Amino acid sequence: MSKVSIVGAYNTKFGNLVKKNRETGEVTDLASIYDLMLEAGKGALADAGVEASAIGGVWVGSCAPGLFAEQEHIAAFATEIDPIGLRFKRMTRCEDACASGSVALYEAMYAIESGRVDAALVLGVEKMNLLDTKGVTHALATCSFWPEEGGRGMTFPGLFAEYAKGYRDYYKLTDEQLQHMLASAAALCYRNGIENPLAHFGKGGPSDKLGLFTAEAIMALPPEKNPMIAEPLRLHDCSLVTDGAAGVVLVGPNHPALAKGKAVRVAGIGQAGERLAISNRSNMHELLAAKEAAKQAFGEAGISSADIDIAEVHDCFTINQLLCTEALGLSSDGRAGHDYVAGRFGADDKVSVNLSGGLKAKGHPVGATGVSMHALLYKQLVGEPIGLAPAKKPTVGVSLNVGGSAATNCVTVLRRE
Amino acid sequence: MSKVSIVGAYNTKFGNLVKKNRETGEVTDLASIYDLMLEAGKGALADAGVEASAIGGVWVGSCAPGLFAEQEHIAAFATEIDPIGLRFKRMTRCEDACASGSVALYEAMYAIESGRVDAALVLGVEKMNLLDTKGVTHALATCSFWPEEGGRGMTFPGLFAEYAKGYRDYYKLTDEQLQHMLASAAALCYRNGIENPLAHFGKGGPSDKLGLFTAEAIMALPPEKNPMIAEPLRLHDCSLVTDGAAGVVLVGPNHPALAKGKAVRVAGIGQAGERLAISNRSNMHELLAAKEAAKQAFGEAGISSADIDIAEVHDCFTINQLLCTEALGLSSDGRAGHDYVAGRFGADDKVSVNLSGGLKAKGHPVGATGVSMHALLYKQLVGEPIGLAPAKKPTVGVSLNVGGSAATNCVTVLRRE
Repeated sequence: MSKVSIVGAYNTKFGNLVKKNRETGEVTDLASIYDLMLEAGKGALADAGVEASAIGGVWVGSCAPGLFAEQEHIAAFATEIDPIGLRFKRMTRCEDACASGSVALYEAMYAIESGRVDAALVLGVEKMNLLDTKGVTHALATCSFWPEEGGRGMTFPGLFAEYAKGYRDYYKLTDEQLQHMLASAAALCYRNGIENPLAHFGKGGPSDKLGLFTAEAIMALPPEKNPMIAEPLRLHDCSLVTDGAAGVVLVGPNHPALAKGKAVRVAGIGQAGERLAISNRSNMHELLAAKEAAKQAFGEAGISSADIDIAEVHDCFTINQLLCTEALGLSSDGRAGHDYVAGRFGADDKVSVNLSGGLKAKGHPVGATGVSMHALLYKQLVGEPIGLAPAKKPTVGVSLNVGGSAATNCVTVLRRE
Repeated sequence: MSKVSIVGAYNTKFGNLVKKNRETGEVTDLASIYDLMLEAGKGALADAGVEASAIGGVWVGSCAPGLFAEQEHIAAFATEIDPIGLRFKRMTRCEDACASGSVALYEAMYAIESGRVDAALVLGVEKMNLLDTKGVTHALATCSFWPEEGGRGMTFPGLFAEYAKGYRDYYKLTDEQLQHMLASAAALCYRNGIENPLAHFGKGGPSDKLGLFTAEAIMALPPEKNPMIAEPLRLHDCSLVTDGAAGVVLVGPNHPALAKGKAVRVAGIGQAGERLAISNRSNMHELLAAKEAAKQAFGEAGISSADIDIAEVHDCFTINQLLCTEALGLSSDGRAGHDYVAGRFGADDKVSVNLSGGLKAKGHPVGATGVSMHALLYKQLVGEPIGLAPAKKPTVGVSLNVGGSAATNCVTVLRRE
């Protein structure tokens, strides 16, 4: 078991943090990528009660800041969180598409475990809404295997539609059955999301106004309100285009911050790569590499699926919520859809999934997502939940964060100390 | 001292590996970013004699593949180097602008030092020539602090011109003196470059044809052959826009590959961040954070500047070659220009600088550069130099790789075992 712990976390408001003047086309950035990084960095350090000068380095997960916000080399900006305390520290960006945040956290862990760093600040950030839909779609499509996928017009809804079709066909589901399963997964996230004050689709937001709290309500939407994006995935099967950032502070054993009683052990991690082009995958009805990552993480932590109290899984599309739920063993293979339809994984279940609202409702600032998953699980485990709390005080929290079409797969087991 | 060693390395041909039809505008990619990665990865594994299945993970340094080649999430492609041997391994991209390669190597080291990985493959890759000059300039400018620099029309020649002016003014040099110093640094790299069969400006290339082997030859060029880019920097003060990749294999202590007698110890590393915006820097006549990185690396390795036999320094612009030479203590402050004018740092000197030809002649595929520096120093230290060898068999090699306007600074000390 790793000896690294999280001792503080922070999550900014997630949302479309841009104002567009429809008449002039002028774009006003209400919270720039720089603002978001500073807020998350300062917030995480304050929550941990760790001085910037005690930090050995900053690791920043960000997916495509060069395309989204014309800023590569974004990690170097992190010095501005505290130009005196962080002077001359190592600043490193990590990128593995939508898993960039988890990967940044793992790299910081290695640095602590190597003995080179006592404490690390891990940030995740993405500013997506400066671009229009076409620009966002292009930026995300560069995370697929461009020559065969993105460059030929394949988008991420299209890639995950392949998984949806693969799952439907393998388990011999009717279209109606699949739609019901996917809508049930979305409805759970929408219900949870309106309790999360930081969510993109929170209280008073679109899912709240439309009352999309049951699969039936989503399925009853007229086609123009829930258009087909990539058959069989509709608009409400897709996560959101979100601006936001999150941060956590990691420390090694014997660090003074552990004495404050707000530490959560990173009990185990797993990272497994799958072939980038989906044409090279063994099958399209399960996430084989995510299962491998879970095996690694559970093995290191000494847990099984049955020990998990709360999980944040990567519902970039509803089909992936099902696949991730199965990859973690929270449902057996082929059963996740039925379990969501049966109303499982709510706050009162034995295991709660996406109490944050998930990528569907909390939002999905791609490079920030992995760090946000860790930050919100941390808050749950130390008894300071942001939004819904599970009925029973949780001890073990697990994140499953995937990058691209699940070519990168990261599983973390967190345990309250 | 670290217990991590390099046991194999590979460097692809560097150059403009694109054919453009001037009439139709059609671009033919002669060596894609994927081709380059595969060649460097397979080449490094073969050189090390390490099976892909024995590799715990791949770390990929790449600066802006999303902007240059429409491919983010590039690390996930590394599985293709050996889809069976590398199945389910961790694949991580690291980015810190032009220091991406060194940073990727450091992250892989941490993973080995943490005990999680026995052996790692480190790749650096950039495919820059698919874009036109405007596109390349934009992509690179995103590595500056965009709101204040790139977004206001500041380019990298412009940013380093500020250092050139700062150096000139602080040391009270005349324009002629400075030009002589800068041209002397460039001439050394051009002389070395034609001996490197992998160099962008190699034998038969432009610097060879024009005979640019002395400062005088460069300074005698008519203005149209050496135009001012950003006063006082001219065309021949700038490094090249290059496609290329490099790879090294790292192993921990007791690894069987160490027994083959071709190991070079990563004796010490240092990474130090400087504030991203140059308006926030303390001064513009020295690289303070690079000096800090050198202090860390030398301290860990137990060496001083006097112990260095060969160095590869980050001559993205000739002024930076002077600043890096001083940051490593190879010249005292303010003396590097005089030392280059005096003909120092050649293959027959006590310490040789940029035997590879440096970024000026070998070329500068930005994300690959840091790995290439390590790869070519490794080759020198094991007695298999690619190109020029120093008169005396070297024991200690040092790299100084900077990112952006020297906001990221990485120094590595390599020692023959």
